[in-house]
Amino acid sequence: MPHTAQAQPKKLQEIFISKNDPDDLRLGDIILRGKAIAENERDVDIAIIGIPQDVGIERNGGRIGAAQAPDAIRRALYKLTPNFGETALKKENFTIIDLGDMAVEGLALEDIHRRQQEIVSALLKQGVIPVVLGGGHDIAFPNGAALGTLDKDFGVINLDAHPDVRPLLHGKRGHSGSPFRQLLEGQTHLKSIVEFGIQPFAASPQHLQYVRDKGQTVTMLQDIRDTGFKKSFEAALKKVSAKKQNVFVSFDMDSVTSAYAPGVSAPSAIGFSGDEICSAAYLAGEKSYVKIIDIVEVNPNFDIDGRTAKLAALVAAHFIAGVYQRKNGKSKGLF
Amino acid sequence: MPHTAQAQPKKLQEIFISKNDPDDLRLGDIILRGKAIAENERDVDIAIIGIPQDVGIERNGGRIGAAQAPDAIRRALYKLTPNFGETALKKENFTIIDLGDMAVEGLALEDIHRRQQEIVSALLKQGVIPVVLGGGHDIAFPNGAALGTLDKDFGVINLDAHPDVRPLLHGKRGHSGSPFRQLLEGQTHLKSIVEFGIQPFAASPQHLQYVRDKGQTVTMLQDIRDTGFKKSFEAALKKVSAKKQNVFVSFDMDSVTSAYAPGVSAPSAIGFSGDEICSAAYLAGEKSYVKIIDIVEVNPNFDIDGRTAKLAALVAAHFIAGVYQRKNGKSKGLF
Amino acid sequence: MPHTAQAQPKKLQEIFISKNDPDDLRLGDIILRGKAIAENERDVDIAIIGIPQDVGIERNGGRIGAAQAPDAIRRALYKLTPNFGETALKKENFTIIDLGDMAVEGLALEDIHRRQQEIVSALLKQGVIPVVLGGGHDIAFPNGAALGTLDKDFGVINLDAHPDVRPLLHGKRGHSGSPFRQLLEGQTHLKSIVEFGIQPFAASPQHLQYVRDKGQTVTMLQDIRDTGFKKSFEAALKKVSAKKQNVFVSFDMDSVTSAYAPGVSAPSAIGFSGDEICSAAYLAGEKSYVKIIDIVEVNPNFDIDGRTAKLAALVAAHFIAGVYQRKNGKSKGLF
Repeated sequence: MPHTAQAQPKKLQEIFISKNDPDDLRLGDIILRGKAIAENERDVDIAIIGIPQDVGIERNGGRIGAAQAPDAIRRALYKLTPNFGETALKKENFTIIDLGDMAVEGLALEDIHRRQQEIVSALLKQGVIPVVLGGGHDIAFPNGAALGTLDKDFGVINLDAHPDVRPLLHGKRGHSGSPFRQLLEGQTHLKSIVEFGIQPFAASPQHLQYVRDKGQTVTMLQDIRDTGFKKSFEAALKKVSAKKQNVFVSFDMDSVTSAYAPGVSAPSAIGFSGDEICSAAYLAGEKSYVKIIDIVEVNPNFDIDGRTAKLAALVAAHFIAGVYQRKNGKSKGLF
Repeated sequence: MPHTAQAQPKKLQEIFISKNDPDDLRLGDIILRGKAIAENERDVDIAIIGIPQDVGIERNGGRIGAAQAPDAIRRALYKLTPNFGETALKKENFTIIDLGDMAVEGLALEDIHRRQQEIVSALLKQGVIPVVLGGGHDIAFPNGAALGTLDKDFGVINLDAHPDVRPLLHGKRGHSGSPFRQLLEGQTHLKSIVEFGIQPFAASPQHLQYVRDKGQTVTMLQDIRDTGFKKSFEAALKKVSAKKQNVFVSFDMDSVTSAYAPGVSAPSAIGFSGDEICSAAYLAGEKSYVKIIDIVEVNPNFDIDGRTAKLAALVAAHFIAGVYQRKNGKSKGLF
Repeated sequence: MPHTAQAQPKKLQEIFISKNDPDDLRLGDIILRGKAIAENERDVDIAIIGIPQDVGIERNGGRIGAAQAPDAIRRALYKLTPNFGETALKKENFTIIDLGDMAVEGLALEDIHRRQQEIVSALLKQGVIPVVLGGGHDIAFPNGAALGTLDKDFGVINLDAHPDVRPLLHGKRGHSGSPFRQLLEGQTHLKSIVEFGIQPFAASPQHLQYVRDKGQTVTMLQDIRDTGFKKSFEAALKKVSAKKQNVFVSFDMDSVTSAYAPGVSAPSAIGFSGDEICSAAYLAGEKSYVKIIDIVEVNPNFDIDGRTAKLAALVAAHFIAGVYQRKNGKSKGLF
């Protein structure tokens, strides 16, 4: 495992206090961290890694705070019970590690992105599925770029109120509004994007035209309301994987309405429900072609009683549950 | 009527100031309390009673505050208009009393439960339908036990994110996470339970297995999403009443997502909507075999502008409306 | 244009700072205000006007704060992107003006209403569609009365938790709970009202009977849940326009549940979602017989991070988008 990410093993131990109750295990009992990662001899299925910065949000004129998101999400995630329907997720046949937060202190955003791409690429090359916790949406650029280093075509689904294809600042500085433009411009292996859940009055017509001019797909929130959430998301999965590509799914929590996700950089008065985004995460987890996800734009400064961090944790957990079933056979009773 | 519950008649009068407008009656004008109960000569249809304690929540490691819930719920309930669709609920053909809060000061939880069971049992034996306002979910144990004193088999629907079948502390002390284990272990008359709305990642697999090993039913939130809320709840009602049993429906407000119910002991980022839980309450009210409900786990300390207390009051009001129609014939225009 | 409404041109300029980015225009770049209105030579399609008072709410015993709503809504509205589906709303073929807030300082409510009716009537007579931002729901009375001055029959849809047909205070003073009684009593041209989304336990049976006795329609929230939102709202539009009447649609934000609209005078624990009320606004915008809307009862004092003001802004934007399509032909991809 790339060691650069294991910055705060001590802190991670403090986030979760085990009950030591074998009948009431939590994800915090199952997810390996710190020394346990070094001692682990099994293949790793999923690696969690945090990117605790909001530099890209600040560049985009947004309100900062997302740097605190990875720990807020972990705090909720570790407490969840690794159980779904009639299947219990067990340490014995499934290995999740938490590499902690990547060191970002004192680095320019471009250097953060470069380092992140290296780490994520190393994980992907070992067959590990990264679950990357932002930070701002700019982290989707190195995540996509890392997937491209597998030298295979890939597709992206961006669950988002906004298309995030804004031009770079001064033509060269990326930010939280530009990751998919950076991917579309820079990556030869990126073949398809579905912008999923784009809201009217939250996207410039020129930006949507840019996406369409690249031959890519915009699925407006209203299309999803008319078709139904699950059916729409399954269509998006089909589209981005049509030619056996690898797939990256990016969960921007502002695709969820502020009733369910108040603690985000840019809240949305309309959008997905909590149940909907969790069902998308589970469906993505089931598909063997989904190689990486990220969960971005949670802003604990504006959260209410941890509501948004908990929902982000549930997105991660539903994805993990899907991956577990992908690897261990479908169980009854979750979806 | 059992007098032990009429602890604070003065307080109850202060909660509601009547407008004295015959064209704008509120439930507070219709619900009898204090002296009016003693003077009442009609059969009582429904009795409200509060259990203002959160000892069982504290024992379960939860955050306290539910002791303040009964009055918060009453404050909202009394202001509601007793009207639904084309039918006005009238004092003349329907009698609701509010017995106030049971005295709990200085009592151990076990004594509170014993006293509660006695009072609720006395009400049930007089053919009165108790609407019990928690307090923590531990109060479901004496409620179920009281129903068992009618010497007839009974069933339970628990609307909840969690199954609440945790073991007792040190093998003997009940708490807010254990009521349905206590009922399953202790009651010979309990024949069926449906755990309704259980959330993935909120229930230990061992606890769900315990429920299934007892021959009982777990209906996961996702099953309900796939089937539809109303159809799922009607199936649960059918199941627990299949052999003409009496039925107890327990409304844990954390079955509702925190967008709609932020003020609860343990908030849920996914779950039912406000409209959904109200429709369940109405359906339960309509059925003559539903003999008792409770509404638990509201925590005013974490509420936002009274949102959760108001929803809990609407749950009570929808149930009352259902009972009214059960007794006075179905009216058009509510559901 | 009636000049009395242009009270604070300077303030309006301060509410929005343009990015001056032709690829990222906002409604604030497109909506004319201050001097730009005087210089405008094109026909005006839509005029926004604020009525910054909560006198009628205070008279009705409600909690004040709605006087601050027009600016809170504008702040959110101006930032929205004038884009929907595959159509960009452009200044060149669509003219929206913001007349600012009507001067209300020191005026009795009756005088505010009289002045408002004059201004709105003048707009309607010029073929301009007023979007009136409350303020309390009492402003629906002068809005309806103004529509009546066109000397043509008209209908009203009131999206509301409450029917708002309370009697006048002392038989003569209107308030935020009485506008539709005032219209039903006073206007010969008002032919039909649909009270849409009325909640059980939020409406007196006498008040609903009053509406029905006048031959008008009450559509309860539960009817809408059974039929589906869009289908119900289309039926309401059909009913109030059946005889080629003009139509006024009044959006009381308390028809939306407090999860989505916490910042209102009287919050509702059940009700419409944000997506639903926006779809109603769009459908109303499309219909050429809809001549005026208002958006009322937003109370910024109780809002959370601007959530309700933003939703109100989206209601206005969806209506504007509908009107644009009414005038410029249906585009693909919004609804």
